[in-house]
Amino acid sequence: MTVKGELCFIGIVEKAGEDEAKIRVFPDYCAGLKGIQDFSHLIILYWIHLRDKEEERQTLVVFPRRHMVNVEKGVFATRSPSRPNPIGLCVVELLKVEDCVLTVRELDALEDSPIIDIKPYIPRADAISSARVPEWTMHGPKT
Amino acid sequence: MTVKGELCFIGIVEKAGEDEAKIRVFPDYCAGLKGIQDFSHLIILYWIHLRDKEEERQTLVVFPRRHMVNVEKGVFATRSPSRPNPIGLCVVELLKVEDCVLTVRELDALEDSPIIDIKPYIPRADAISSARVPEWTMHGPKT
Repeated sequence: MTVKGELCFIGIVEKAGEDEAKIRVFPDYCAGLKGIQDFSHLIILYWIHLRDKEEERQTLVVFPRRHMVNVEKGVFATRSPSRPNPIGLCVVELLKVEDCVLTVRELDALEDSPIIDIKPYIPRADAISSARVPEWTMHGPKT
Repeated sequence: MTVKGELCFIGIVEKAGEDEAKIRVFPDYCAGLKGIQDFSHLIILYWIHLRDKEEERQTLVVFPRRHMVNVEKGVFATRSPSRPNPIGLCVVELLKVEDCVLTVRELDALEDSPIIDIKPYIPRADAISSARVPEWTMHGPKT
């Protein structure tokens, strides 16, 4: 079995910002956006490029202090950007599609983060309002 | 700017099945599961290994026939497994954690699919019940 996968970057965060961010999809991949305007929300997978370092990728436990908790948690039980594969996942509202640029709301990625995938948000698969979470996740930022 | 990212596989789908699937996290990454049992749902990112081929990764438009629609859609407007980066995303219910094995419900990955990330599902970030979708997504499988 192979133990590695290779990602290509399909776009970039051209402008960051929670209120309004811009994602530019590279020309080679732009045809993949056809029909995307029919969805109000998208799931953005991006590469947390500033954490793509050996040390960050070896992180397996963290103290989620942003959530005011000082107890050790496994990275797979948090949305920590330091993790074996520095993939960020964010549900965004799609405001506008113009050529190869998506304008979105609530993107938590930093400027220049490479985009690795865009998926339509489909509530019957993706929305679990009743999901149970530990109390610490209710403090501080959403993720 | 680099245009590629490298993924390590952190686990594998040991047993497929919508009712009950098993994900084995490799020993090197098992410490990352600490505290995961406090969440009822997880987001699983997996490598769609059977589509990790040049031709599948060059796919930019598809006909989502599983959804009884015969109109061309961009891959980023569908959950097609053929796409530039063969990453599958699935929200699952966590039934049991035993050593390095997660037992989950509703996983849509095939057996032997490598796991690339596990994230806790946090409704205040991830659940958008009111998200708008085109009519064709309501037919056939959820994704």
